[in-house]
Amino acid sequence: MPAAMEKEPLLQLRVFDLNCWAIRYLSKLRQERVQMIADTLSQEGYDLVLLQEVWSETDYCTLKQRLSACYPSSHYFRSGVIGSGLCVFSKYTILDTFLYQYSLNGYPYMLQHGDWFCGKSVGLLVLKIQEIVFNIYVTHLHAEYCREKDAYLPHRVVQAWELGQFIQHTSKAADVVLLGGDLNMHPEDVGIRLLRGWTGLRDSFTDAERFEGCEDGCTLVPDNYFTNKKELQPFPLGIRIDYILYKGQSNFAVKCDRLVTTTGKAPGKSIPYSDHEAVIATLYVKRHGEAKALNSNTVEPALVDIMNEARTEVRVGLHAAQRQRYSSGRMAILALLLLLLQAVMGLSSLVGWASPQPFPKFSFSVLGSLAVLVLLVSGVLHIFHAIEVKVLQGTEDQMRLALQSLQDRLSAK
Amino acid sequence: MPAAMEKEPLLQLRVFDLNCWAIRYLSKLRQERVQMIADTLSQEGYDLVLLQEVWSETDYCTLKQRLSACYPSSHYFRSGVIGSGLCVFSKYTILDTFLYQYSLNGYPYMLQHGDWFCGKSVGLLVLKIQEIVFNIYVTHLHAEYCREKDAYLPHRVVQAWELGQFIQHTSKAADVVLLGGDLNMHPEDVGIRLLRGWTGLRDSFTDAERFEGCEDGCTLVPDNYFTNKKELQPFPLGIRIDYILYKGQSNFAVKCDRLVTTTGKAPGKSIPYSDHEAVIATLYVKRHGEAKALNSNTVEPALVDIMNEARTEVRVGLHAAQRQRYSSGRMAILALLLLLLQAVMGLSSLVGWASPQPFPKFSFSVLGSLAVLVLLVSGVLHIFHAIEVKVLQGTEDQMRLALQSLQDRLSAK
Repeated sequence: MPAAMEKEPLLQLRVFDLNCWAIRYLSKLRQERVQMIADTLSQEGYDLVLLQEVWSETDYCTLKQRLSACYPSSHYFRSGVIGSGLCVFSKYTILDTFLYQYSLNGYPYMLQHGDWFCGKSVGLLVLKIQEIVFNIYVTHLHAEYCREKDAYLPHRVVQAWELGQFIQHTSKAADVVLLGGDLNMHPEDVGIRLLRGWTGLRDSFTDAERFEGCEDGCTLVPDNYFTNKKELQPFPLGIRIDYILYKGQSNFAVKCDRLVTTTGKAPGKSIPYSDHEAVIATLYVKRHGEAKALNSNTVEPALVDIMNEARTEVRVGLHAAQRQRYSSGRMAILALLLLLLQAVMGLSSLVGWASPQPFPKFSFSVLGSLAVLVLLVSGVLHIFHAIEVKVLQGTEDQMRLALQSLQDRLSAK
Repeated sequence: MPAAMEKEPLLQLRVFDLNCWAIRYLSKLRQERVQMIADTLSQEGYDLVLLQEVWSETDYCTLKQRLSACYPSSHYFRSGVIGSGLCVFSKYTILDTFLYQYSLNGYPYMLQHGDWFCGKSVGLLVLKIQEIVFNIYVTHLHAEYCREKDAYLPHRVVQAWELGQFIQHTSKAADVVLLGGDLNMHPEDVGIRLLRGWTGLRDSFTDAERFEGCEDGCTLVPDNYFTNKKELQPFPLGIRIDYILYKGQSNFAVKCDRLVTTTGKAPGKSIPYSDHEAVIATLYVKRHGEAKALNSNTVEPALVDIMNEARTEVRVGLHAAQRQRYSSGRMAILALLLLLLQAVMGLSSLVGWASPQPFPKFSFSVLGSLAVLVLLVSGVLHIFHAIEVKVLQGTEDQMRLALQSLQDRLSAK
């Protein structure tokens, strides 16, 4: 513990973070769980509540109504078709909000995964508590459906990079930066190493003075009634994908005094709040003499390797996207050629160059409709993958520039 | 002129801004004009060049190659299907870049307008010149195709708001903020008043000590060979839609010493650089004693009215989007019902409940294909307008919160 931290804390901040798994019609015991969450939140009176997967605005309104006495300020972040699922309840007045939607977020045709429809984003709130400026970020990154062959890894790496860049560029005037959410990344994954390395955010699990909860701080555990036990088979203890990260800046230092996770059940209840465990951090903000922050973002040489690793993932994604853009484009051109051929054949039989009705009318029309359908679908796919290629190229470019700046800073040391 | 500005300037910055109108296959004399632009830029040796509508990366590469000696640092911002069209050339090293794509940007089915396909964005660059931190923004907002009945006004207002919020949230550590680009708004339009009021950015045209160029600072003028004279008929002098805006922060003040626009022709040439006029500003950055910036963003009571005006526009857009979401949804349901009916009829004739083949097979299949097509198209439209509704609701919400904070600050005065 640095000497400065031993002074009296200026401020205690209790933060509650939970992926609520509140999907209308699909999530089990949704309404009961939302009520349970509201009960706990009003009883405990946290300073700040960061929720994810509150997909329905009705659930947000229920929570808002139940929590208005204890948390007078709240915000729901809207994006995508369904909504970002992100919402925040705060004891302190929210002064400003801003939303950044990630440039890549899965594929619209992967209906069974549905991430695309949520418009995954990072929400920013600005709070001022005792004249200390807090930038609070809440986010939910693209899910990981298959760890062995994770087709969404490049998208998640892009999201982690954009999240880091968004935090870095927007938090310059903040005294305290806090990020809570379901990052869908294990602690050792490249995305989270990139995010932490780039922003200098500290992990409340590894930094906490005291920890109570699931072993290894896991937030998706086999003991939870709602989790998919089969998916968790390779991880007997579960996985840690929900985080509270923080850093102090300027004259402020932040310390995590206590971190708690629920352990497969809501305290005193027979069912859990969600399929994820809640993460509850007690943070202390202290002022220290020096203008340079204790937790400030110092350039780590290891970051160069992490960035190169992330760039490799982005390039892998780029090649896949280029292949898909090419094959959908080729399919669209084939369908267009077929349509043109049919048009020529139809016209020639009309003007009498060919024998009238050389093909069965029915098959001819079915083939035509099929060609239109293929043209439409592959055209839309082509546009979609062209956007994906642009974003991946742009990210690779930005990363290259950032890496260059980083190396310049390192060599200037 | 404030007293502090009379001191010797720390730094002179010459900025060149141009919407290049470089659309492959469509823009007239594109390659000649790109070469002309490259010639001028290398001759003049500006400090910073902000370009828009460089749609083709080939043109960017041509420029980069021609300009590498004079402008060693450059960046092309990639987004959308085609690319954002934004690029920057700088005498000073670009330390970092970040791109924010606007949440709303027209409709993909308005192929003749094409804005959607460009993924209109704002690009940020960070420069450090003589230890002064510059945040440079370059952007291009959605075009205005019909001023009397501007269906894109709500989208442009959302873009102006997001641009303002992006600048405010990302520029806290900057000493100088500079925005250049084609805002597609006349100086009196609500979007630009909102942007300027919210960010405190100053207009180089109104603030310049000396001005040379088109009357009223217009940047789309009838004298330009490439402009559409019919569209400019209501504005005999032309319109001003390209801007260089700036502000100094912390200990720095910025002053525009000289502003120049081209006047329908490139100097000494028979054709202009583009259908837009170039805007060239000579800025002086000076340090002043007080920590509070001279140009700092003071809360103006008029901003409350501007924000209410902007909110009204957003609400108008919201109603239109809700109507379109509803009608596309209804159309999709009707198509689905028709398909179901056909399926039932087809099946019943198959299993022999009805007389075999009660309908002509050809019309039956055409009707079926048509229903599939309508279902697909209206489904995609429904999703698109649902996203539009979410963004407009979210913006209205953010604006309401910001207005509340603003009113609190005003009443605390």
